[in-house]
Amino acid sequence: MEKEGVKQLLITSPASIYYLTERYLYPGERMVALFLNCQGEATIVINELFPFEEVEGLKLLWYKDGEDPVDRLLTLVDKNHQLGIDKEWPSRFLIKLMEKEAAIGYVDSSYIIDRVRMIKDEEEQNLMREASRINDRVMERLISSIKGDISEKRMTNILLDIYEEEGADGFSFSPIIAYGANGADPHHHCDSSLLKKGDSIILDIGGIKNNYCSDMTRTVFYKEVSEECRAIYELVKKANLAAIEKVKPGARFCDIDRAAREVIEKAGYGKYFTHRTGHSIGLEVHDFGDVSSVNTDILEPGMIFSIEPGIYLTGDFGVRIEDLVLVTEDGVEVLNSSSKDLRIISEE
Amino acid sequence: MEKEGVKQLLITSPASIYYLTERYLYPGERMVALFLNCQGEATIVINELFPFEEVEGLKLLWYKDGEDPVDRLLTLVDKNHQLGIDKEWPSRFLIKLMEKEAAIGYVDSSYIIDRVRMIKDEEEQNLMREASRINDRVMERLISSIKGDISEKRMTNILLDIYEEEGADGFSFSPIIAYGANGADPHHHCDSSLLKKGDSIILDIGGIKNNYCSDMTRTVFYKEVSEECRAIYELVKKANLAAIEKVKPGARFCDIDRAAREVIEKAGYGKYFTHRTGHSIGLEVHDFGDVSSVNTDILEPGMIFSIEPGIYLTGDFGVRIEDLVLVTEDGVEVLNSSSKDLRIISEE
Repeated sequence: MEKEGVKQLLITSPASIYYLTERYLYPGERMVALFLNCQGEATIVINELFPFEEVEGLKLLWYKDGEDPVDRLLTLVDKNHQLGIDKEWPSRFLIKLMEKEAAIGYVDSSYIIDRVRMIKDEEEQNLMREASRINDRVMERLISSIKGDISEKRMTNILLDIYEEEGADGFSFSPIIAYGANGADPHHHCDSSLLKKGDSIILDIGGIKNNYCSDMTRTVFYKEVSEECRAIYELVKKANLAAIEKVKPGARFCDIDRAAREVIEKAGYGKYFTHRTGHSIGLEVHDFGDVSSVNTDILEPGMIFSIEPGIYLTGDFGVRIEDLVLVTEDGVEVLNSSSKDLRIISEE
Repeated sequence: MEKEGVKQLLITSPASIYYLTERYLYPGERMVALFLNCQGEATIVINELFPFEEVEGLKLLWYKDGEDPVDRLLTLVDKNHQLGIDKEWPSRFLIKLMEKEAAIGYVDSSYIIDRVRMIKDEEEQNLMREASRINDRVMERLISSIKGDISEKRMTNILLDIYEEEGADGFSFSPIIAYGANGADPHHHCDSSLLKKGDSIILDIGGIKNNYCSDMTRTVFYKEVSEECRAIYELVKKANLAAIEKVKPGARFCDIDRAAREVIEKAGYGKYFTHRTGHSIGLEVHDFGDVSSVNTDILEPGMIFSIEPGIYLTGDFGVRIEDLVLVTEDGVEVLNSSSKDLRIISEE
């Protein structure tokens, strides 16, 4: 904070609060905010409905339903300085704070905590490895469960059971299980679709273990694969591998994006790769730091992000292949080991 | 908007956008905003990754990943007026809009759309009735599924299957299934706890059907019930019924809260009823409008909210009984019909 000239900062993201205090809160619509300043004060404003175990060095400032938590913040914030705020705070709190003239200005200082969270220490790296190991096992079991008469939606329920049996604490995000043309929408919501011979099957899944997230995508084919599907699959796989190869300290996020995109553009499918190549991940499935053409930030050891190129042919099919990677001291460690060879589900 | 003196308004809540356009978006971290002004303009700023079917009278303004959606907003907002904003917009967008001096001021005008959404028209009332009818059936099946060796977490998976079999589109919120002392935390997260003889079992569950939410709580007992549990149960039931009886047009939300709280206070348990009595519900499980001591707003026909008094004895047990109610022209319609008689699960 001192280096960035931010004298006081509000942290409101439950994941960031957990990162700093080791206490996870699920505040729903109720306000929770951790106030920090450069004099070393740390106070959390919290509704008394939420049990919160004491943390050394952290003051607790409680409020009740019916009381205005913004008034509690006014007792903490120094009016004569700007106030940094992290990125997700709902407008209703921020506008009220401004109306009460809490500070001389308000800046988005989310990057201060978000950048710290980007670099995973040894313990976090191990937790991320464990979460992805579980995800590998879950993926194999999920692929083994594929059957023609099981809808996408039903598969998500089967998936949830598998995560729990493998020791995860649930999904890290709503899984995308997309059959055939549904896979051409990168944000498809699972529905009652059933499989047809020749369908691509996108399986974009992640779980939570010890508060850390996994995220992986595999695309497999049902009963048969057309020549076009096979060619697209191999192209996406090549893009995935090309991007992984570029990962090392000193490279830029945009270089990784370029490596994947170049492979797909050269084959003439550039306009069908409609999204960024990846995103950072950790306590949240979308941590700060995109793998995109506009992110010129430099990779550092300890960063973990996804590499997930895809090609989407509307009305027809989609292919996406995604792994999580860790930037090491001199290169890359791929956290997923699930096979990327083209697989055809025969359903014997 | 005109009546409230709000000349221009940003609607960013996916539920409100659906309410106004009949298109549901799941934007994740990407910005989506519907701009409205008193000249009758309506424009939605949206990432081209999200398919959005045309709506008559609505202009679409697309942006790509890597482009700044806030710049799109600047082309819409009139700099010379204040800008109303709804309540959940993340701080990173609002602060950027302020830095670019989009308007002369920013006000939380969420109530304009939130109040419209509070009054359910005939069609919405029918959708809410249907969602709660499903919830009644699901509750009966869930209670029939209770067994000593099924953990809270495992029960939530069983519950998800039941919702789908009964035609719902999933949970409207993370269900709370809390055994024994876990039930004394009104926001308990389901864990691997198993049942013990004499445990109270709180079942706070809701589903989504056609985008509308249900929400109901029943508390049952496992194998036996102590005299204390029975007395607390009957007290909470009495509070639930007393509050329901007060529901009619012209009453205030705080009157409903008072009716429930008074029953519990008179019996000496006031301090163990730690939360508000209820919340509005519709497209979101927590719509605008609390049933609380500080909400003096007047009930109007078409409003739907929960009545959910509870008593929580830390380390021991909890009881909560919740129904959804609709304010009718001359009184109340209770949307749930699941029995509130004390039930002991014998598990034959």
